[in-house]
Amino acid sequence: MTEDTELLERPEPTPEDGDPATPTLRERVKAAVDARDAGQLNALLEPLPLSAALRQLLTLSADDRDTVLELVPTELAAALVEEAPHAAATELVERLEWDRAAEIIDVLDSDLQADLIGDLDSEDAEAILAELEPEDAADVRRLVAYEDDTAGGLMVAEAFKFPVTATVGAVLRSFVDEDQDFERYRGQHPYVIDAEGRPVGVVSLRGLLVAKRSEKLSAIMIEPIVVTVDTMLDELQDLFDRHSFLGLPVVEADGRLVGVVSRAAINAAALERAESEALKLQGVGDELRSMPLWLRSRRRLMWLSANIVLNVIAASVISAYEETLAAVIAIAVFLPMVSDMSGCSGNQAVGVTMRELSLGLVQPKDAMRVWLKELSVGAINGLALGVLIALVAWLWKGNVWLGAVIGAALALNTMLAVSIGGVVPLVLKRLGQDPAVASGPLLTTITDMAGFFLVLSLASLLMPYLI
Amino acid sequence: MTEDTELLERPEPTPEDGDPATPTLRERVKAAVDARDAGQLNALLEPLPLSAALRQLLTLSADDRDTVLELVPTELAAALVEEAPHAAATELVERLEWDRAAEIIDVLDSDLQADLIGDLDSEDAEAILAELEPEDAADVRRLVAYEDDTAGGLMVAEAFKFPVTATVGAVLRSFVDEDQDFERYRGQHPYVIDAEGRPVGVVSLRGLLVAKRSEKLSAIMIEPIVVTVDTMLDELQDLFDRHSFLGLPVVEADGRLVGVVSRAAINAAALERAESEALKLQGVGDELRSMPLWLRSRRRLMWLSANIVLNVIAASVISAYEETLAAVIAIAVFLPMVSDMSGCSGNQAVGVTMRELSLGLVQPKDAMRVWLKELSVGAINGLALGVLIALVAWLWKGNVWLGAVIGAALALNTMLAVSIGGVVPLVLKRLGQDPAVASGPLLTTITDMAGFFLVLSLASLLMPYLI
Repeated sequence: MTEDTELLERPEPTPEDGDPATPTLRERVKAAVDARDAGQLNALLEPLPLSAALRQLLTLSADDRDTVLELVPTELAAALVEEAPHAAATELVERLEWDRAAEIIDVLDSDLQADLIGDLDSEDAEAILAELEPEDAADVRRLVAYEDDTAGGLMVAEAFKFPVTATVGAVLRSFVDEDQDFERYRGQHPYVIDAEGRPVGVVSLRGLLVAKRSEKLSAIMIEPIVVTVDTMLDELQDLFDRHSFLGLPVVEADGRLVGVVSRAAINAAALERAESEALKLQGVGDELRSMPLWLRSRRRLMWLSANIVLNVIAASVISAYEETLAAVIAIAVFLPMVSDMSGCSGNQAVGVTMRELSLGLVQPKDAMRVWLKELSVGAINGLALGVLIALVAWLWKGNVWLGAVIGAALALNTMLAVSIGGVVPLVLKRLGQDPAVASGPLLTTITDMAGFFLVLSLASLLMPYLI
Repeated sequence: MTEDTELLERPEPTPEDGDPATPTLRERVKAAVDARDAGQLNALLEPLPLSAALRQLLTLSADDRDTVLELVPTELAAALVEEAPHAAATELVERLEWDRAAEIIDVLDSDLQADLIGDLDSEDAEAILAELEPEDAADVRRLVAYEDDTAGGLMVAEAFKFPVTATVGAVLRSFVDEDQDFERYRGQHPYVIDAEGRPVGVVSLRGLLVAKRSEKLSAIMIEPIVVTVDTMLDELQDLFDRHSFLGLPVVEADGRLVGVVSRAAINAAALERAESEALKLQGVGDELRSMPLWLRSRRRLMWLSANIVLNVIAASVISAYEETLAAVIAIAVFLPMVSDMSGCSGNQAVGVTMRELSLGLVQPKDAMRVWLKELSVGAINGLALGVLIALVAWLWKGNVWLGAVIGAALALNTMLAVSIGGVVPLVLKRLGQDPAVASGPLLTTITDMAGFFLVLSLASLLMPYLI
């Protein structure tokens, strides 16, 4: 609830703004790193927008990155780590000396502390935890245990809480006194807890302002909306959509208040999920170019190797019809086209279903309804594309029957691809698989096989007209 | 700053939760619609999570959707419109009678009002504006004029402002008195404006609590961070990343305070942008299955028709080598495979660049650096995939030279696809094109042509060994 202390800082003028990474700036940063000139590094990076400062950092070599994070003020180092995407942040921290890593982690919110510590190997994690205040370290250990994308995984352990016997005056005084810790409670209402640590009330800002200072909190508090540590991200999003508060108190199974999940943390988690979803489709995940070459190469290859197997399966259909192909070689020109077009049509339907899934507008049990809806789109688009490619094939190769074969095959296969494409993510989800990862490869294998089969079997049926 | 009034409502227990759209519920909603039973509709929809209620609404026919929005309480109708993705929300509102549409729009925040009004045709828009309070209508007209994804387009017009001569007591009294409007100012600090309406200060909550009631605001205010109406989303995100405040005052070119942009609005805009980016890649955009069939079909077809042209261009390479193909028909089995694999490898690189662009980690001028980085990944993965497919071709078709041709072609084409894929979005962005839309089709056309050419020209060079 107190977002004010920072209002005093105005953002510094940003030199070279709009073009903050000219070679000149990059060279100056590199020179400052080589000279280990802490003052100069801070002078160069601090005024930049955070994303630009991070870009400068990540384009340096790994050793130079370490140097920057050692030399710049802890606050700036922490801001850069916080701005970095998750995987990059972990890599930045795990390369640092333990004491420096602990200094940086110490100023982060406890949810980010737990995210980072949870991703380090256990030796690094223990060493860094040993450098923190025992109380903070205990908070982090507790938070690490919760699943990502639950209230437990997204909350901060610090709660702005008062005993039920406290007075309004006590809360108001704490606004004035607890200068240092105050920032940690931003976006929180004062929560009122009973002797067992259970949240029994929440005090509104207006209530505090309107009440007499001697009044007990129990007289002005209202019943809080509470979530448990295992409440899922989707449900949290819904609660924040429906209500305008900035934070929700989080309780353990026994009802004790163990943290607060903020609207900002929920928004950030939803954004991260949306951004990574699209890339999972291609087997890229959270890759950044600052990661080591072998890691990037290996992760992409794993996905591509699986894709080769699926391609071989699809190609075996062509192989079975080599005689037909040999007789009407022009068909070979159209096979990749049918494969690509059907794949694109099907993936459009996959994309719409994935979006409706993430918006909560469809569920696995809607598969039949989705299939019927996509069948109509598939029929219309199949007809249109079939006629189009039939004309192309006819005019290009001068054989109307060739056009008919290619056109009919594409029309049927588009209908199949679109209707299956809409349903595949729902089926995968029902089977407990991640639809973002498996939908694309599964769909294109099916549509390739069906497309090749349709073209080649129609061609062998109509062979006399084609040669 | 006042997120409290709603704290009084606890979310109602959600019947059939976890499975809120069983046929039973859907049938009961439909029955209530048919009976035009307003009470029953509210009883069924109000307790659901908003996303589930919206799912119920969007699976109804268009006429039934109108009925629901007419019958349920205005607050619920507005919540559903607010929850709906942008395009669906516009469609819901434009079908309603003007007076009902105006009632619903009236309770939305002014930034959402402007989004909706801006998307209606001008006759509907004028009719609905005529139903609003003249002051509100003027706000909306003003907001509609600003670009999306700027502070002007994302702000609300209502600002929580006080003249510089007001006292602390006046602000505190307004917390108590302005009950009705208070909700609109959530996430705002009280801003202090001068006689010309320019923001000259902002008052922190702590300042208000600590100060005497008779004190002038000018004595406790601090200088505000101000953005102009044309500040872009990226810059706003950066400001909110660096500072913990919940809103920023927005000024016109002449310095007058014209609105406030909230952290929540910035987060929502960033999330919407991330979600639509991935779908633009496939020509699907913001399609939902609740949209009319012909619209969905036409939008997908536009993209697919362009894709056919690109496919024909690529296939013309195959056509030029029909003689080679006729001599070594086994090659036809591998052409779609080379096309698909290279496309996937290249699109992985496109995906990483798109992500780094959206995170601000690369810029168009980094193209050369990105190209070199991807060239290494492409070389490693090309080698690995080339060897793999060479083995497959050799073992399958029993000709080691065939394996060599296919393997060498895939290896070279993967290197090409990966290195070009990393750079294509940067080049398109430099040329002022939307990289999300054009990168995929452009890349796969290039890699298809190059792949077909490599396979077939190598094959004709080595023809004696292949037959």
